[in-house]
Amino acid sequence: RINADRLWDSLMDMAKIGPGVAGGNNRQTLTDADAEGRKLFQKWCEDAGMTMGVDTMGNMFMTRPGTDPEALPVYVGSHLDTQPTGGKYDGVLGVLGGLEVVRTMNDLGIKTKHPIVVTNWTNEEGTRFAPAMLASGVFAGIHTLDEAYAKEDAEGLKFGDELKRIGWVGDEEVGARKDKMHAMFELHIEQGPILEAEGKDIGVVTHGQGLSWTQVTITGKDSHTGSTPMPMRKNAGLGMARILDLVDEIAWSHKPHAVGAAGHIDVYPNSRNVIPGKVVFTIDFRSPDINVIAQMEEDMKKGAKKICDLMGLEVEFEKVGGFDPVTFDETCVAAVRNAAERLGYSHQNIISGAGHDACWINKVAPTAMIMCPCVDGLSHNEAEEISKDWAKAGCDVLFHAVVETAEI
Amino acid sequence: RINADRLWDSLMDMAKIGPGVAGGNNRQTLTDADAEGRKLFQKWCEDAGMTMGVDTMGNMFMTRPGTDPEALPVYVGSHLDTQPTGGKYDGVLGVLGGLEVVRTMNDLGIKTKHPIVVTNWTNEEGTRFAPAMLASGVFAGIHTLDEAYAKEDAEGLKFGDELKRIGWVGDEEVGARKDKMHAMFELHIEQGPILEAEGKDIGVVTHGQGLSWTQVTITGKDSHTGSTPMPMRKNAGLGMARILDLVDEIAWSHKPHAVGAAGHIDVYPNSRNVIPGKVVFTIDFRSPDINVIAQMEEDMKKGAKKICDLMGLEVEFEKVGGFDPVTFDETCVAAVRNAAERLGYSHQNIISGAGHDACWINKVAPTAMIMCPCVDGLSHNEAEEISKDWAKAGCDVLFHAVVETAEI
Ligand SMILES: NC(=O)NCCC(=O)O
Ligand SMILES: NC(=O)NCCC(=O)O
Repeated sequence: RINADRLWDSLMDMAKIGPGVAGGNNRQTLTDADAEGRKLFQKWCEDAGMTMGVDTMGNMFMTRPGTDPEALPVYVGSHLDTQPTGGKYDGVLGVLGGLEVVRTMNDLGIKTKHPIVVTNWTNEEGTRFAPAMLASGVFAGIHTLDEAYAKEDAEGLKFGDELKRIGWVGDEEVGARKDKMHAMFELHIEQGPILEAEGKDIGVVTHGQGLSWTQVTITGKDSHTGSTPMPMRKNAGLGMARILDLVDEIAWSHKPHAVGAAGHIDVYPNSRNVIPGKVVFTIDFRSPDINVIAQMEEDMKKGAKKICDLMGLEVEFEKVGGFDPVTFDETCVAAVRNAAERLGYSHQNIISGAGHDACWINKVAPTAMIMCPCVDGLSHNEAEEISKDWAKAGCDVLFHAVVETAEI
Repeated sequence: RINADRLWDSLMDMAKIGPGVAGGNNRQTLTDADAEGRKLFQKWCEDAGMTMGVDTMGNMFMTRPGTDPEALPVYVGSHLDTQPTGGKYDGVLGVLGGLEVVRTMNDLGIKTKHPIVVTNWTNEEGTRFAPAMLASGVFAGIHTLDEAYAKEDAEGLKFGDELKRIGWVGDEEVGARKDKMHAMFELHIEQGPILEAEGKDIGVVTHGQGLSWTQVTITGKDSHTGSTPMPMRKNAGLGMARILDLVDEIAWSHKPHAVGAAGHIDVYPNSRNVIPGKVVFTIDFRSPDINVIAQMEEDMKKGAKKICDLMGLEVEFEKVGGFDPVTFDETCVAAVRNAAERLGYSHQNIISGAGHDACWINKVAPTAMIMCPCVDGLSHNEAEEISKDWAKAGCDVLFHAVVETAEI
């Protein structure tokens, strides 16, 4: 069993870097705080006897050697970056859980045939630079390095420039390892309410739902809110409002599993007495069924065009992110389920509602995920919380699944 | 008649300061560009023989003396500040039109009994610091100086600090002049489509419609767009969307004259995969009928509460600006109408759709406004345009109305 106090202390120490405004974290990708968090993680890993590789996307690979020079490594990891108003566990638990697995192996003098590589994937959150899971996506060959480097944040800063600025461009070719992975495991908080409601310690993640991000740009005409008669208005803000209502209606029509909303909305020029001439917003649709995602997209686009046509507005759509639903590797999933069973933790199968680095890595290596509950299912919120017991259960299962897969 | 070329050249010279991104201007109040615009205006006025007074709100009073030391001054002016994506004429025409009136008097050797004071009122637009017409409002006793100084922009900078920073805190007590005004005239572009559609050169402004700005804050719960099931969401963005639709419906129900919209919308934390936990936006309702404004406000608040209650959202309302409908001074309005008639310009009565400094000054001195058409009724847009002929007609009428009122 892992050392829960040590894991918890590391989580709390990491949370001191890039503190939020309400008890959580703002350690967005490629900020100074991200660099500081990486340094701390590097130090901890090196203290635990691991050696570092860094690729050109800034992905960190901390290796504990195996006993068989021919055996491919087992990867364990997640991400250290957070939302602008994020929690202390989303991603971080999976990275520091990986570190705890190695620390426990050291304590117990366990040597594995396969090397263990604890990984911190760059820019999982995708808030500053869309899309989410950007660096694991480049690693898995979904995006090119050039595409990723060219991504811009809201201030027009480029991903490539910012990665360089914080000093984390590695010399390893991104994805060079992708054909040399024995397996990958990611421990993550559920970010939803199911496990807590069902009173389960462990979610055995069998699938991940797919996602589509469509950025919508509505163009109307800036004009005076007082002196422009109602019939002459081309109010892009009102068009956006009607589309948001439509998105909600579409998502509900596919319940129980589909979801839809817009988290990002920018209004131009955003002045109290100017009718918005332009609104840019991103619609996030998800479902475990790829056909449902396609259907929701189509219905939204058709409906949005109709709304905008009626209002004399122009509308454009741009796909800014997405991934297909995922089925995780049977053997790896079984290793997770067996570990939970063996350790006596209550568990159930679960579909991940969120995207994770594991979703991309699953395309290039046998992969599985372990979930632990979080309070009220709350995540992407500074108030995100888990108990030490939940963290312990998740990390115990991770430890056993990794040891079983890496072979003693 | 005034010198249309000189007026136009001055307009174009002023437009070089604080250029926009699309041919218009971004010379927002209390920015460095505002300071530069003020300096240029000061220089032009001093070259025309005027002397400057500045009050503690930064209002500029450029005086051409009268022949009778007892006679109270006739004020002429508007504002030099612009919207973030504003035009070259909104406000500026009224200030530089006032300057052109004095320049023409100088050319023709006209001496008036009453002094002429050309005025630039600080922060008319209200975008950076709400409400609009802030400094003429303090002058007229609507707000206190302390209230105004405490107003904050989106970055938390205070009006008082910014006024000091750009070096335009004058030594004159604000409002000290308000009981010593003979009259005030403001020339302004219509910012609406009526005069152009009717083919009229001049709008004789008899009334101004009233306004109410209500800032709405909706609080829901930030949470993950992927893993939060639809029934557990508290989506403040969706609440905002439904209220925007309601605002539109309410405004239409009072046509022909009422209008309503939201130009300002801020979504928090504004991340693609976070359901908005908070949205702050401002609703702008207007009508020439004070009862209609009150009714629209009440209907909106009732409806918004119902929408938010149903969605498990909190909603709060804060009045951030407003003024009652205005009836301008009969004698001053007649002076405008007579001038248009005498000069042979086509004209009609008109209600101002926008608020203007003249609306506040009308509370303390006999006041009237002159409007000229603008292309497509477009304003609060960088593409705002007028013809030199329209500017000339408006300024000719201003000149005659001022000369008549200031008495030769
Ligand atoms: N786990 C997580 O929050 N990932 C970000 C990508 C997503 O929005 O699902
Ligand atoms: N004229 C003008 O645009 N004034 C700003 C105040 C308003 O929104 O009416």
